[in-house]
This record gives sequence, C-alpha cells and structure tokens, in this order.
Amino acid sequence: MRGGKLVVAEVPEPVPGPGEVLARTLACGICGSDLHMLQRVQRVLAGEEEPDTLFAFDHDADVVMGHEFCAEIVEFGPECAQALPVGQRVVSVPSVPRGDSRAALGYSDELPGGYAELMVLGEANLVPVPDHVSSEEAALTEPMAVGRHAVAMSRLDEGSVATEVPVVIGCGPVGLSVIADLRRRGVERVVAADFSEKRRELASEVGATIVVDPREVAAVDAWRAEVGATAGALDEPPVLMFECVGVPGMIQGMIDAVPRYSQVVVVGVCMQEDVIRPLSAIGKQVNLQFVLGYTPEEFAATLSSIALEELDVGPLITSRVTLDEVPEAFRTLASPDGQAKILVVPERR
Amino acid sequence: MRGGKLVVAEVPEPVPGPGEVLARTLACGICGSDLHMLQRVQRVLAGEEEPDTLFAFDHDADVVMGHEFCAEIVEFGPECAQALPVGQRVVSVPSVPRGDSRAALGYSDELPGGYAELMVLGEANLVPVPDHVSSEEAALTEPMAVGRHAVAMSRLDEGSVATEVPVVIGCGPVGLSVIADLRRRGVERVVAADFSEKRRELASEVGATIVVDPREVAAVDAWRAEVGATAGALDEPPVLMFECVGVPGMIQGMIDAVPRYSQVVVVGVCMQEDVIRPLSAIGKQVNLQFVLGYTPEEFAATLSSIALEELDVGPLITSRVTLDEVPEAFRTLASPDGQAKILVVPERR
Repeated sequence: MRGGKLVVAEVPEPVPGPGEVLARTLACGICGSDLHMLQRVQRVLAGEEEPDTLFAFDHDADVVMGHEFCAEIVEFGPECAQALPVGQRVVSVPSVPRGDSRAALGYSDELPGGYAELMVLGEANLVPVPDHVSSEEAALTEPMAVGRHAVAMSRLDEGSVATEVPVVIGCGPVGLSVIADLRRRGVERVVAADFSEKRRELASEVGATIVVDPREVAAVDAWRAEVGATAGALDEPPVLMFECVGVPGMIQGMIDAVPRYSQVVVVGVCMQEDVIRPLSAIGKQVNLQFVLGYTPEEFAATLSSIALEELDVGPLITSRVTLDEVPEAFRTLASPDGQAKILVVPERR
Repeated sequence: MRGGKLVVAEVPEPVPGPGEVLARTLACGICGSDLHMLQRVQRVLAGEEEPDTLFAFDHDADVVMGHEFCAEIVEFGPECAQALPVGQRVVSVPSVPRGDSRAALGYSDELPGGYAELMVLGEANLVPVPDHVSSEEAALTEPMAVGRHAVAMSRLDEGSVATEVPVVIGCGPVGLSVIADLRRRGVERVVAADFSEKRRELASEVGATIVVDPREVAAVDAWRAEVGATAGALDEPPVLMFECVGVPGMIQGMIDAVPRYSQVVVVGVCMQEDVIRPLSAIGKQVNLQFVLGYTPEEFAATLSSIALEELDVGPLITSRVTLDEVPEAFRTLASPDGQAKILVVPERR
C-alpha cells in the first residue's frame, strides 16, 4: 500500500532485531479488514477522514499488509533462544513487541506483513506448525482464532452449549469461523444467514444446520421455527446472535430483530459512525458484546484445533493468488459473492 | 395529562374488575420518565414524533401518570381471594393484567396511575407493607427496584463484590438507587459523579465513597486513582460503569471513557436516537448491558430490603406536594439540581 494504492514493488529486506527472527512467508490470507483499511487510507489521504485510532502508521509510508500468515524460519536475530530449528514452519499473532510499543504486522510502516516474501516475527510469539498441517491450513489460524474468541466472549457456557441455538448473521470468513467454533464447542444447531448462495453453501460445510437467504426468511424467524418460539410471546426465549457483517445499521437491525434478554455479539467491524435507538435496546434489555481479535492462548489453541481436525478449514480456502495478483484479488473481494478466503502464496512450494 | 398538558381535574372513579382491587393512593413518587413522557406526548401531538413503542396509549385521551406508589385497599372487585384486609397498605408493580394484555399504570388510558386519589390494582400483584414502614418509604420501592435490577443484570457477582469498585454516572433517583443497591450487595467502594452539589451529597448519604463533580475530575479518573490504574496501561483493569443519565451521547461517552473489557450498564433511558462509533467499542471489547424495570421478585425483595433497613431511602425524599402542586413539581424537576424524589401525597394522613 503506497500512497493509498496497492503496488507490487521491491522493498528493502527487513532485518530482525533482538529476540526477532527473519521468516519466509508461505501463505497469507486476505482479510476484509485489509480492503476496509485501503479505502480508509484513501479517504484519510484525500482529507475526508481522520486517521485510524486502532492502528497508527504513517499514511504516506509504504505499508505491506497481510496478518494471516504461515511462514518458515530463515534466520535468527541477536539474543534469540533458538529453540526452533531454521526451516521450521510457524504461525504467529501479527504483532511484534518493539521497545515500549509493538508493531502491528500488516498495519505497520516499520515491519512488513504477509503480502511479502520476507517478514520479521517475534521469537516469543512463534507457534510451530505440525508437519501434517499444510501451510495453507495453518494460515487460517488467525481468522479462525477470531471466531474462537467471539464465541469465548459470548455468554455461551458449558451449561448452555447443549441447548443453545445461536444465529450467525453474515457468512464471510468471520461468520464462518464463528459457525465452525460453535460446532467445535459442542453446539448442535446453528442458524446462519447470508445473501450469497456460495457463502450459504460454505456455512453448511463448516457446520451450520439451518441456512437461510435473508431475502426469503429472516434469520430470527428461522431460529423461532427451530426452537418453537413465537415472536413477542411472554415466554419467548432469548437468542444468542453473532453480527458478522460490520456495516452501519446492522447493530440496530439486530436489536430490532432479537427477543428480550438476547445477546448480540458484534464481531463485524463497522468502521463508520452508526445510529442506534437506545430505547429499543432498553425495552428488550439487550446485551451488546463488542469483540476484537483473540488472546495469544486462543491463537495457539486454534492451531491445535486445526491440527486435531476439530476445525475443518479446507472449505474456507476458495482461491490462491501470487503476489502479482494481490491487487486483482482485492478487486474480486470487493464483491465477494463466490469467495471466502483468498490465500496469497508468494512462492509456491 | 390531557392533550399534552398537566391538569388537575375530576375524572370518573375507576372500577375494579375481576381479580382487581380499588385502592386509595397514599404517596406516589414523580419519576423522570414522566417528565420525558409529557414532552414526548407533546411532540407526538405536534406531529414531530412517532408515538412511543414501549407504552401504547391514546395520546388524545386522559392519562393519569404515577407509577411509584403506596396505596391502601378500599374494596375488592369480583373474584378476589381477599387474603389481605381492607385498609391494608400495599405496593404493587405498576401493571394490571387485563385479558390478553396489561395496563401499564401511569402510562395507560384505561386505568389511572398514582397521581390520583384512587387506583385499581391487580390483587395478585399486591405486596403488603409492614406497619413500621412509612407509606412514603414504601413508595420508594419502585425506583429502588430499578437499581436492584440494574445491579442484578450487571456482571457483578459474589466473587467480585468484595473487590469491584463500580462507577455510577448521574446521581438522580436512578443513580442513587444503583449506589444504594451496590452497597446493599456488599460492595465497599463506589465512585459517583454528578454536576449537582445536592445530588453529590445524596450520593454520599446513600453510600458512594468517592463522589466527584465531572467539571473537576472525570469519574473514570477518580476510579483510576482509587484502584491504582494507569490510563491505557496494558494491565489496566476493566471497570463496571452504570450510565444513569439517559441523554444522547452518554453511551459513546462511556465507551470513550472506560478501559478495555469494561461493562457499561445502560440504566438511563435515552428516548432519542443516538450515535455511536462501533470501532471504538470493538477496539475496547466493551460490553453494553441495557436494562429496564425489574422482575416481580426483585420488586417484592426491594420492599423487604427497605423494611429490614438494608436500604435507607429516607435521604432520597426531598419534597412532598399535593395533587394541586404536581404541575409545579414537574417544572421544578425540569432543572432538578436540588431534588431527588418528590412525593405526591394526595391526601395527607
């Protein structure tokens, strides 16, 4: 990302500092947030918007995006324990501690992200990838950790896993990872909704049991039919709903849709201001849980779940592109009907 | 409330139906919601706003407001069990089941609320007032139940009662009832904030241990000083904050103020649309719990707590007025600096 545009160019090779390793990227997923960030940077450079508060980088500098990666160790910087061998395949949370702050890999003007051949990772963050897990599957650790975290932050617990019928709105990679993790946790029935036929198919593949096109039936009505609830009845049970779309109006739409005492977990990242009517949320005593990212523990556990085949990430990978094809892939994902996760494979092996 | 104005007038005596009792009002608190409702009805009648979704009544009909009352039984309608004697003082949730729906006392065009000499109550809802509890204290059951419910819906639990230092924003009757209930639950330290000196005094009287004027110090900074937290530090603990103001902008203000993983319990009722920035809530993984009212169990338990002197409601009663003085009391409460709860006493005894 250079001056608000995607370019494929040579940049200086990154140099690992103390406690850091140089790694070769093997596969890196394209995240919807990257598309949003590109648009945001364009608006900031055009003076239409303030810079991002979550990620601070020089908008005029080169930024190599990509934060869902699998890489292999090329060499160790100074002061490394070197517990893993050179050549070991690893994943890592996309963050490198540097002094008092940290570089957010993929949204940093200091270190490159995964849409590059070489990266610098923090040695302490490395999680080795078992041999039987492909690099492409391992690159799905990051987006799948997002779903795991969202489910962990919801009010689903051991007592409710057997009976809860959660509803997932939006079946892009985020929604799919939520569905997959709900099933991994032992939830037997999941309602999912998406306008795209391909994404509805993927939702079924990762474990949604009732999948609807919102143009035909509202997700909450499909849920009511499944649990035998009547809209507005005094004994209508609450629903656990995951908002995985992230555009203005979705939060109020969820508040309007759900029964009283429901929880809406906001996983979709809405970058713009949004309007809500508090009175409707108050009347229903709704709980809104906003979530972001995952803990390092959840990240490592997600790779384990992939390795143990508790999570089948294969269906999520819908395309592979080379570095040269990244700008075109961004255009494809702007209308993502047929796609879930596009993997960037800098150097096929 | 007649045609969007408060008038003092004779209206037909209400007649108790099956399972209902006629009761004489002894004391009834004026609620901030009544002031909001009067303004709302004026806007609806002026064609500036849609009618309320929470309470449906004919805006052209007479509505006797008042839903925080203590009354005494005058006579029983048909089909009553009559377990309580005539003359027994009672409180009741402000709702009377009628056929398939219920009349919301105070916001009904069918039955009068407590700003009248006579009311009709549902026999099954009656909670007898112990002799040693004054009618004025008993009338505080309803607003105190609001605080009890808000605390019950928060994430405060037995494990965290000893260590949590909750923050209460706004020390009107709602905020005061939250503070009092937090102390009743065993919380040792409560931070409270209000612009009004009188209300800050009341906050101290009901149990707030750190009370601030937001013009001098932000409530969250007072909390940080109390718990030894540093703004933005990685180990900054989350806060449990109660929003008891209910005007546009408060919810985003709370999101901006709190550390990561905090819970904001929205108790203040904001009747207008409101703008939030989801990205900031997402970045902090905030939990927003909207609450309203209380359960019948919480209502009855609140009267018990008043009777057992677990809750001292005396400080909350700042004035008493007659029926004739209600319109003037509404004007006084429009700038409520010196007031908490004004009680309407239809007939002194």
